[in-house]
Parts: sequence; structure tokens; C-alpha cells
Amino acid sequence: MLRPEHCLRLLPATALAFVPASAPFSCPLSRSHRGTTRLRLPHGSGPQLRGKPSSTLRAPAMPDAAVAPAPEMPQREVARALAEQAVARLGPRLLPSAVPDDVAEFRNGAGNAVGSLDVRRGAPGSSIDFMLQSSLHCKVPNGAIDITSILIFLNTATDAPHFLLELIQGRPTSIVVVLDLLPRKDLALHPDYLQKYYENTRMDEQRANIEELPQARPYRSPSLFVRSACSPTAVMVTIDCGQGGDAALEDIVSGRLATVAKEVLQIWLDCCAESMTAMDDTERDFLLKRDQIVRSKTIEVDLTASLPRMFDPDVSSRVISEIRKAFGVEGP
Amino acid sequence: MLRPEHCLRLLPATALAFVPASAPFSCPLSRSHRGTTRLRLPHGSGPQLRGKPSSTLRAPAMPDAAVAPAPEMPQREVARALAEQAVARLGPRLLPSAVPDDVAEFRNGAGNAVGSLDVRRGAPGSSIDFMLQSSLHCKVPNGAIDITSILIFLNTATDAPHFLLELIQGRPTSIVVVLDLLPRKDLALHPDYLQKYYENTRMDEQRANIEELPQARPYRSPSLFVRSACSPTAVMVTIDCGQGGDAALEDIVSGRLATVAKEVLQIWLDCCAESMTAMDDTERDFLLKRDQIVRSKTIEVDLTASLPRMFDPDVSSRVISEIRKAFGVEGP
Repeated sequence: MLRPEHCLRLLPATALAFVPASAPFSCPLSRSHRGTTRLRLPHGSGPQLRGKPSSTLRAPAMPDAAVAPAPEMPQREVARALAEQAVARLGPRLLPSAVPDDVAEFRNGAGNAVGSLDVRRGAPGSSIDFMLQSSLHCKVPNGAIDITSILIFLNTATDAPHFLLELIQGRPTSIVVVLDLLPRKDLALHPDYLQKYYENTRMDEQRANIEELPQARPYRSPSLFVRSACSPTAVMVTIDCGQGGDAALEDIVSGRLATVAKEVLQIWLDCCAESMTAMDDTERDFLLKRDQIVRSKTIEVDLTASLPRMFDPDVSSRVISEIRKAFGVEGP
Repeated sequence: MLRPEHCLRLLPATALAFVPASAPFSCPLSRSHRGTTRLRLPHGSGPQLRGKPSSTLRAPAMPDAAVAPAPEMPQREVARALAEQAVARLGPRLLPSAVPDDVAEFRNGAGNAVGSLDVRRGAPGSSIDFMLQSSLHCKVPNGAIDITSILIFLNTATDAPHFLLELIQGRPTSIVVVLDLLPRKDLALHPDYLQKYYENTRMDEQRANIEELPQARPYRSPSLFVRSACSPTAVMVTIDCGQGGDAALEDIVSGRLATVAKEVLQIWLDCCAESMTAMDDTERDFLLKRDQIVRSKTIEVDLTASLPRMFDPDVSSRVISEIRKAFGVEGP
């Protein structure tokens, strides 16, 4: 069976930030990538991706490989609700979507994977750098892998944390959750920052709300960098409902997880999204330098290594290019 | 029953670094401190503290309160073996013990607590700042609390991590373990540092060796600062063997835990203790500043709040003063 640990070494889109690919590629997916596994799901048999009309869906690179849209499932509903919550609050501070159609939705020529990416830049003068949403659905011999991500990054008008949610599901009974206000300063060096954004906001109660679930156990990213980049109140868990626990997992994702994710986003919207931080040039340069290193490392440990394993080179390079653009990070 | 979480808000000595006292004091110990609970164990009926002759033990502040030395137990054996391992390797780079007798061993006038503290400074020209060992034994109505700590801190001749071990036991079947190479740089900003001291040394395997124990579960320090100060490969667990599990816990402490702690110390001795780092003045000033903030915060969140709750004011202020001296941190 494909274990989440395997998926995590592979998977991409914007599971980018938190799905390192440091280990050799050893998953059944590689067979799909080589074209030995094909799925022929009826085109249009599932719900539409991100509400876009199916007429905008591109034909797969290999004309005989029909790829169904990603199926509806609770993790996508959670992400969609959060995106709506963010967009409603941020309003005109978000510019319209800026990615080309063939990156907004993309698919593997082998017919087993479909993804979507949306990036909205912050309006000039706002503290929003970008909001990135992605969804990935990938058929594998024993099932499917689904990854949904929302990242809302701030620029150097503020040093407030970024918002991050990653939901990674390798089977119907188990999900990996990474939910955090990503710190932008060294928390051991800046106790005041820790107090402002993590203690005063009682973020740890949100973490505890998830970790107290009997089905939750710690998720240790294989990337030490990822673990270092997260805050001490990050939700980093695997929720595993065991054999036959499909419905139980759906209930948790739609219930407890949806509630906590919404509350964390609300904290971020209230305390981070609108903040402006007075900084002198030296402080701002330092923040910028740290941001750049974290973003570059984030992309290096995951995306550039894993996306090409699932998608044809032209597709993956298009998607990587858009993500690099959002992150403000040059290619190698 | 006294839960470890309660002990952790109280307890001191050099559980200093990792035993915050941020919550209101609410433990049975406070009764002891007010003198309403007295223990009258026969003086000298237990093993000697840290091998010192019992003739050096001071009379308790209240002459009617005879205090037994801390009992032998696996956690103290582990700490003693580690201290010997460190001393054997560091040799003349450690100066002789520098604490006064009444801090080397101290006790509560109420007769319920005994502690020991040893500090050896690094020799001039070495990269060792200090090695601090402490042990605390405190009777409470339902049993006892035992804390053993070893900290070996480096100076600014190097930026290599410090060594830290804390063992905190609130009942015979359960122990909290904090074991880490404490980073001295922002790991998200310095991936090379992360790679050198944590990835190349395969420290994460040591963490996994403890966490894979079926009796282990994550220990979340109530102090977000403590969590932020630790590395992503830190062992931070509660090992709980459940009712009747006294012998099982002793086996784990003397077996798996002793082995892992020894290996972590060996990694530290091989990769950190002898290192010298070329730094310009700006880098060294920055390292010094970070070290000072971490040390001050460490003492603030724990020691000054909790030691006076267990020991008479003159005793706790003497001990705090010696620890401040070792840490190079001024009083408030």
C-alpha cells in the first residue's frame, strides 16, 4: 500500500512547501509517469475543478488519455471555504488571478494526474504578497493521492507570519495536515514576536484541538528544514482512522479540522493580514533575506524535485515557473 | 495524582531551562513549602548524593526537618554516566567545580526537598563555556519528583550547538525526556548549519529511536519559547509505562534511553565540543546577542519563578545566583 510517507516524497503542486523529495523516487506513481498505467475515466464525469466551466479544461497532452477532474472530497471543500473566507476579507487587496490557463489546470499525459494552481498577487500598497491555491489529484494503482494547499504570503511591509494549509491524503482513511502561521523571524531571538503572534493569539489551543483527536499522531516531515521553518504551534499531524474509517475521516475533516482551520485563518486575518511593521532599512533587508532563503529552500526541497516525477516536462516546468514567479525566486 | 504537567510548572534546579513556571502555582508542593507537610526520613538512610561524602551535607535550615539524600534511580545513573563520558573526553578543558558547598547541595527547611548543583567552567582558550549538572529530589504527598539535568554550553569561539539533557519524573511509571543539541542559529535562515549539525550527524535517527517506543508520546512544553529554542531533532517525549509499569520504565531508562543519550552526547563531543568557527566581529556579536537572549529567557521562564516555590528564599537565591553566574546573565 502507498503510505503517506511515500506520497510526501513525491508530491508537488504547492504541497511544494511541505512535501520534500529528498529520498529516491520509489512509488508506484513512477510507473504511471512512464506510461505503463493508464486511467480512462470518463471526461467530465466528476465535479468541476474550482468551479471553472469544463469548457476551459485542456485536452491531455496524450490524446488517448482522458483525465477526469479531481473528485469532490471534504479536503477540497475545506480549502474552498477557507479561500472564500480569505477573499471576502481581503477584497480588493487581492488582484485577479494571474496564471495562464494551462497552469490554472494541468494534467499528466499518461492520464493519471490532474492539478490546478491559482495565484493572486497582492494589490500595490497592500501587505499581501500573494495568495496561492493548489489542488492535485493523482491516480495510483491502489487508489489516489490528493493534495490541497492554501498559502497566503505577506510582503516586507510587515514582518507578520504567513498563512499555510496543506492537506495530503494518500488513502481514504488517513490525512496529513500541516496548518501554521509561518514565522518570519527567529522565534528564539525574538520572544516579543513569539508572544505577539503565537501566545497572545492562543494559537496553541488550535493545535491542541487537533492533536487531542485520538486518531491524530505527530507528522514528522522528513525535511528538517520544513520542521525548522514551522512555528511551535503548527498543526503537523497524521489523522488515521484505520481500516474502514473512510466516513470517520470525512467527519473529522468536515468537522473538527474545518473548524480549526477556519479559526486559524481568522486569527491570521485579524492579527497578521492587515499589519504594517515599522522597520528601518537594515531590519527590512534582513527580513527580505530570510524570506528569500526560506522561499528558495522551500522550492528546492520539494517542488523542483517532485513535480517532474508526476507530470510531463513541459507541464511541470510551466507550473514550476509560475510558482517561482509567485515566490519571487529565480530558477536554478 | 500529581501529573507531570503540574511538576513541570514548578520544578527548578536546572530543569531551569526546560521547566517553565508560567501558570499559577497549584501543586501539593506549595503545602510543603508553607511547612504544613513535613517528611522525617532518617538522615543518611539513602545513597549519597553524587558520590560526595555525607559529612559534607549541610544541616537543614529548620533543625527538626531531617532530609534524606536523593535516592538512587536509573535517571541519576544515566546522568552520572553521561557526565563521566563528557569529563573523560573534555579533560583539562573543564576547570574544577566552582560552586560553594551550600549550593553544591541544598535543601528545603520544610524537610521535603534536596538538590545539588555542580558547575565547571571551561578552561581559558577552550570553546567550553560551562558544564552544569543538577539533581533535584522533592517529596510530595503522593510520591516524589525527581529531576536530573546536564547542560554543556559553548562560548563564542564556536557557533556549534550546546548539549542538553533533562529527565523529569513525577511518578515511578512515567518520565519526561528533553534531549537536544540546542541550536545557536536560526535554522530556517541557515540551512548549511542545519545540514552540518543535524542532517550530517543523523541526529533524527536518535530522536526516532526514542519516539518509536510504544510508551512514548510527544511532550509539549507549555512554554512556546522552549519549543522554539529546541532543534527539529530534539527528543521531547513523555514515556509512560502505565499502572504497575515501574520496572518497565526503569528498563527503558537504563536501556534504550541511556543508549540514545550516550550516542547523542558522543555526536556532540565529536562534532561540536571541539569545533572552532571563523567569524567576523559582526557575526560574533550577533551570536553573542542571541545566546544572551536565549539564556535570559530560559532563566526568566523557569528558574526565578519556580525555585522560590520549593526552597527557602535564602537557599533559592543562592542557587539562582550561581546559575545566573554560569549562564552569564545578570539578575533582574
